[in-house]
Amino acid sequence: MDAIRAQEGWFVLHLFYRVDRRLWKLLEPQERSQAFDCLSRVLEKFRNNKDCQGHLYSIVGHKADFALMLIDPDLNHINQAENAVAASFPGGTLQTIHSYLSMTETSEYITREDDYDRSLREKEGLPADSPVYQQKMQAFRDAMQRYVNERLYPKLPSHRVMCFYPMNKGRGELKNWYSLDFETRKRLMGGHAITGRRFASKVQQLVTGSTGMDQWEWGVTLFADDPVYFKRIVYEMRFDEVSAVYGQFGDFFVGIHLEATELPARLNL
Amino acid sequence: MDAIRAQEGWFVLHLFYRVDRRLWKLLEPQERSQAFDCLSRVLEKFRNNKDCQGHLYSIVGHKADFALMLIDPDLNHINQAENAVAASFPGGTLQTIHSYLSMTETSEYITREDDYDRSLREKEGLPADSPVYQQKMQAFRDAMQRYVNERLYPKLPSHRVMCFYPMNKGRGELKNWYSLDFETRKRLMGGHAITGRRFASKVQQLVTGSTGMDQWEWGVTLFADDPVYFKRIVYEMRFDEVSAVYGQFGDFFVGIHLEATELPARLNL
Amino acid sequence: MDAIRAQEGWFVLHLFYRVDRRLWKLLEPQERSQAFDCLSRVLEKFRNNKDCQGHLYSIVGHKADFALMLIDPDLNHINQAENAVAASFPGGTLQTIHSYLSMTETSEYITREDDYDRSLREKEGLPADSPVYQQKMQAFRDAMQRYVNERLYPKLPSHRVMCFYPMNKGRGELKNWYSLDFETRKRLMGGHAITGRRFASKVQQLVTGSTGMDQWEWGVTLFADDPVYFKRIVYEMRFDEVSAVYGQFGDFFVGIHLEATELPARLNL
Amino acid sequence: MDAIRAQEGWFVLHLFYRVDRRLWKLLEPQERSQAFDCLSRVLEKFRNNKDCQGHLYSIVGHKADFALMLIDPDLNHINQAENAVAASFPGGTLQTIHSYLSMTETSEYITREDDYDRSLREKEGLPADSPVYQQKMQAFRDAMQRYVNERLYPKLPSHRVMCFYPMNKGRGELKNWYSLDFETRKRLMGGHAITGRRFASKVQQLVTGSTGMDQWEWGVTLFADDPVYFKRIVYEMRFDEVSAVYGQFGDFFVGIHLEATELPARLNL
Amino acid sequence: MDAIRAQEGWFVLHLFYRVDRRLWKLLEPQERSQAFDCLSRVLEKFRNNKDCQGHLYSIVGHKADFALMLIDPDLNHINQAENAVAASFPGGTLQTIHSYLSMTETSEYITREDDYDRSLREKEGLPADSPVYQQKMQAFRDAMQRYVNERLYPKLPSHRVMCFYPMNKGRGELKNWYSLDFETRKRLMGGHAITGRRFASKVQQLVTGSTGMDQWEWGVTLFADDPVYFKRIVYEMRFDEVSAVYGQFGDFFVGIHLEATELPARLNL
Repeated sequence: MDAIRAQEGWFVLHLFYRVDRRLWKLLEPQERSQAFDCLSRVLEKFRNNKDCQGHLYSIVGHKADFALMLIDPDLNHINQAENAVAASFPGGTLQTIHSYLSMTETSEYITREDDYDRSLREKEGLPADSPVYQQKMQAFRDAMQRYVNERLYPKLPSHRVMCFYPMNKGRGELKNWYSLDFETRKRLMGGHAITGRRFASKVQQLVTGSTGMDQWEWGVTLFADDPVYFKRIVYEMRFDEVSAVYGQFGDFFVGIHLEATELPARLNL
Repeated sequence: MDAIRAQEGWFVLHLFYRVDRRLWKLLEPQERSQAFDCLSRVLEKFRNNKDCQGHLYSIVGHKADFALMLIDPDLNHINQAENAVAASFPGGTLQTIHSYLSMTETSEYITREDDYDRSLREKEGLPADSPVYQQKMQAFRDAMQRYVNERLYPKLPSHRVMCFYPMNKGRGELKNWYSLDFETRKRLMGGHAITGRRFASKVQQLVTGSTGMDQWEWGVTLFADDPVYFKRIVYEMRFDEVSAVYGQFGDFFVGIHLEATELPARLNL
Repeated sequence: MDAIRAQEGWFVLHLFYRVDRRLWKLLEPQERSQAFDCLSRVLEKFRNNKDCQGHLYSIVGHKADFALMLIDPDLNHINQAENAVAASFPGGTLQTIHSYLSMTETSEYITREDDYDRSLREKEGLPADSPVYQQKMQAFRDAMQRYVNERLYPKLPSHRVMCFYPMNKGRGELKNWYSLDFETRKRLMGGHAITGRRFASKVQQLVTGSTGMDQWEWGVTLFADDPVYFKRIVYEMRFDEVSAVYGQFGDFFVGIHLEATELPARLNL
Repeated sequence: MDAIRAQEGWFVLHLFYRVDRRLWKLLEPQERSQAFDCLSRVLEKFRNNKDCQGHLYSIVGHKADFALMLIDPDLNHINQAENAVAASFPGGTLQTIHSYLSMTETSEYITREDDYDRSLREKEGLPADSPVYQQKMQAFRDAMQRYVNERLYPKLPSHRVMCFYPMNKGRGELKNWYSLDFETRKRLMGGHAITGRRFASKVQQLVTGSTGMDQWEWGVTLFADDPVYFKRIVYEMRFDEVSAVYGQFGDFFVGIHLEATELPARLNL
Repeated sequence: MDAIRAQEGWFVLHLFYRVDRRLWKLLEPQERSQAFDCLSRVLEKFRNNKDCQGHLYSIVGHKADFALMLIDPDLNHINQAENAVAASFPGGTLQTIHSYLSMTETSEYITREDDYDRSLREKEGLPADSPVYQQKMQAFRDAMQRYVNERLYPKLPSHRVMCFYPMNKGRGELKNWYSLDFETRKRLMGGHAITGRRFASKVQQLVTGSTGMDQWEWGVTLFADDPVYFKRIVYEMRFDEVSAVYGQFGDFFVGIHLEATELPARLNL
């Protein structure tokens, strides 16, 4: 079937699995090792596709046994991949108990070229034909291009722990994000970005859009080597006005990055 | 049993299915192929009824394996059809895990004939017996007739992806849609329609009414070839006052249009 | 065991069932036909009790396969009847997945005899000993008696479709039904009744009380031959101040009236 | 294991059970009768402990098949008893689908001895050493002692029907029970008590505390012979300011008082 | 796999289990005793790791059969331990039905050294080089060090009963904890601490942070020998402004401290 590609951005699918230990116990030893082999092969085959990325995480607590985070430029292909994973274990042994569909996107609140142009000319007093202006403008365009590329076409980081949660901007009767004007929203998001940058060396963030695609408006995936920074960044951000007043959060999932070959020992299966 | 037809409009039933892979594994190979054959025949037989339409979608993520969207002028017949689908797979293998019942309807906020008549006579200064008035009035009536037909008796589009979600108009203690007067509601809905028309070439919408029929007041089904437009249209509409302040949304389901014959390969069954 | 009767009113139990198709498949053909025979006999036996009424509905969508609506003056007997239905199918095949317990009751907002008396004497200027007064008063008493009888001791109508939903009157921080005085509540309910009467020829309503008996304060059962009127009456009522501001609604169930003998073919069992 | 007793009050555990009719069908006839015998013996043995009380109720509707209400001065013993009940039926046949843990307690809003003393001396002008004062004071102390004993060490009444529901006092942004001063709360609770006393001959109430012990702040168990009074008392109380504005209610369970020996016939098992 | 340690604090995992009595019944007697032996060994092995602590509780009511509370400086190790517990019973017999992940942390509202220094010098008029100042300062530092150690590196108390619940600070439209300034929050938390200290001899509290780690912002575990104090401390704290206005609470779990060897008898397995 033909690919279903987006005019801009890639598809991101977080998948959460539980192994039915009762059915697992009924499998022959050979079926058990084949199950994990098959899962490994499905994942490897998936990653062999251009721009397709997939990471595996052991989830802490009862919410799931493990999770897969898939990135794919083709919605059709990612749907085939999730069905291939579901079928990799003998019937019913692997249950997909939760998932989240979103797309990579750029923020609408980033500095635009005409804003930067005006700030160079008016605030810094640089004539548009001066070499300094042109140099700065080029550097700006390069930085923006890198930013857009990183947001739209990200490379999944390989930190040891991952934290996923979905979020909305509130639409309360008194405090309604979507009734604010663009400049106010931009200013509020700017304060948020400052908190993010303070944690930049400890926590990498991937914010993907899911309005019209899944239950919340955004999915947030954090990556770190020390999980205490998930607690610190989310806690500190909660005092930013944009989160304190408008942020609404779903459930949080914390996972440990693993290779497929490590999964059977990790799950004691 | 006799048909149960509505004085106006058709019945729309969204059905979401999951295949129990444990029970599926226990079937004989022959039973498996018969299951899909039977589902295909049920769907084909359904479509052979006058005005009955049915599309199949592979759902992305854990919310369902696949979905059926049925349109039928007869509530009795659509209930028989859903039971025939449920029975098409050997007992218990196919689980109907979600559904949504609604009816096609026209919007109450469309321009009425007497409003248009007044606008022609008073704003444009056209006498009611002038040829221009009569020509414009006839064109208006034709356009309205086409609109009403498209809304009440729609033809399911065959775009590659579908997005379904239910919605309410809020009845908060301060912001209550149902306490607004008709003119205010009409004006707010008009702003919404403008956003919709900007996406007209990318996204086709079918809004069906379910007040008194299912858990929410409306069901919205979007059709597109590129799913990024689901994200864009719903996100942009969220800033329209009518959505920002009064819109309440249930869960979103995204599916890929398939023929019944493509289903077994898609689900790896 | 002795009957448990109420000082006023009858008990109403809505029961929603799903057939476990996996267990059904494991039954012998004879067990299957016995199951439906047994259900028919239980229902027939129930109806043979004085004032006991029971109707069967095929539910549209995934919420249930079918529903039973039982009316009984004896709580003890209705509890025995629901257990007899649960046991009519071989163990576990029939699952009672939802139910709603309520009681018939009269509205507290109806015109009282002393109000009518005053209106006759003061507004119409009729002396209490005049023949016209006495005639009108008798007619009023007769109408009230009929109304009370219809509400407390109703006869289940046999329209083709049924719609059930539970409701509360809101107790928000600003808009609180239970903080309004009696006269305001009576006036608001009066507006509601007018909308109801406009649909009287299309929709019959049975409002039963469940404060202190089940999760919501009232259960509403609508009966019609054309289901579009469920949508219209509930939608139009939503604009009545009493619903717009104070009405809170649970889930809606739509069913098609059937005889027990029609059930196996309807469910493809 | 040693008893876990409270410095004041007894433990109350409401337990709600469902029988898995599929597993029940698989039992041998002897296992079935043994199951009910075992449940009877467990209950009898429980009641043989000093101050331990246990009543059995057949629950109307799908929420449960039957319920047990246990009162016990020892948390350790009540936990052992619930496990003994769970094990009384062959494995898995009896499912504990809901429960509620609370403790008997006195109201903090009752008239205190020093308030009564002041009212006698100041309002009635009785000298503290007068015989009338001393007589009244003694009567007050006796009545309070009886009240405290009835609340802390109640005897489960044997009315024919029982209604259980949990409740909170609201902590809304505008209407917050826990921000009111003591005198206001006492006055509001007093109005509530008056409604309760109007139904005293029809409905007996047991209010037990569960703040810090279960999901809601209180559990309310009503006992009556005619269930219409559950509806009436809860409905009328809803207009008391304390309920109208601050009361929040969980789900309601209605049950019919039974002996263990009556259970198999009642459940058609 | 390498340890995943936090820059500060330990990981705390509350795990709630149910035994599937149907599967348990199907086990051989030997498998049953092996199951509990294996669980005991897993727990013993876990506790043998430096700083790892694990307590077992029998949960009262239907919410779980038993719970484990694990403390571990290594997230990787605690995830391995939970999987080892899940695998200790034969496949599927032990279900992890709930869990809560959090981390030990110090309060941000404790008195800081510079505040204490200022209070000594300015309020008490002690010169910074006086022996009394230096003595008091040292005592303060020692007390703070002990406090920090107790909060970050706690020793699980062995009281007879445990109560666990999660909580948030509210972010309502009018009352928003995260919009308050630091000094106001510190003052409000101070009032709360006073209530806590009144119960210090009866209830020990362990408050752990879970913002960015699990569904709520904090997990609270209370330990006592008499469960009535859970009710009293939580009830009295609810009147503290910080709880009354800003506290939001999840479900409460009450458990009785047990050794693994006591579990089979307790659960009647």
